[in-house]
Amino acid sequence: MYERKIPVDLSCPLRLTMSLMGSKWKSCILDELRNVSMRPSELHKALPEATPRVLDLQLKDLVDDGLVAKTIYPELPPRSEYSITELGRSLLPILDAMIAWGEENKELFEKKYNKPNV
Amino acid sequence: MYERKIPVDLSCPLRLTMSLMGSKWKSCILDELRNVSMRPSELHKALPEATPRVLDLQLKDLVDDGLVAKTIYPELPPRSEYSITELGRSLLPILDAMIAWGEENKELFEKKYNKPNV
Repeated sequence: MYERKIPVDLSCPLRLTMSLMGSKWKSCILDELRNVSMRPSELHKALPEATPRVLDLQLKDLVDDGLVAKTIYPELPPRSEYSITELGRSLLPILDAMIAWGEENKELFEKKYNKPNV
Repeated sequence: MYERKIPVDLSCPLRLTMSLMGSKWKSCILDELRNVSMRPSELHKALPEATPRVLDLQLKDLVDDGLVAKTIYPELPPRSEYSITELGRSLLPILDAMIAWGEENKELFEKKYNKPNV
């Protein structure tokens, strides 16, 4: 059976939630899947900055944790698709709050960290 | 000047917020500081599972990003204290939502990942 690289942290509620969704790619994957199921190749195309290996590991965690479901269609060649589960969907309000915060404060951090275009 | 190990991600609002607060210890530090200022030794005591080095690096990021302020009191020996800034405080509703989600789903993941005590 698949074994997580970093175990889920059960020591407190905040750490639990953070260990499940608190990585850039996990939250991006959940965000991508909020309206559509996607094939692995579509996810790779939607998140090109992540290496396929990293994306696959994050997907395995998400499936293992029950936030994403993987469906394998018995076709030739076999086709698989990822979709968000009800449990994963219950994290979307948190993602929405993070997106709203990021939009509100984007300019501040762009000024702070972006090299000026001279 | 201090340089972040992992740069702030300005490519989208979700990644921006996640790169600022999306690590176990950063969110725990913000949570610890929500009501009180703390000396480094107090933070280390409050979060004993984090090594002092990791905690110090995370604190440097948080200060650099403007989410936490460091005040140095010119005493002998010098004393320093960390406190949450207004910007850091604006992330607390997100932390609260994560804590609530974790509380709601704790049992599910305890059943799933806790080794049974035989």
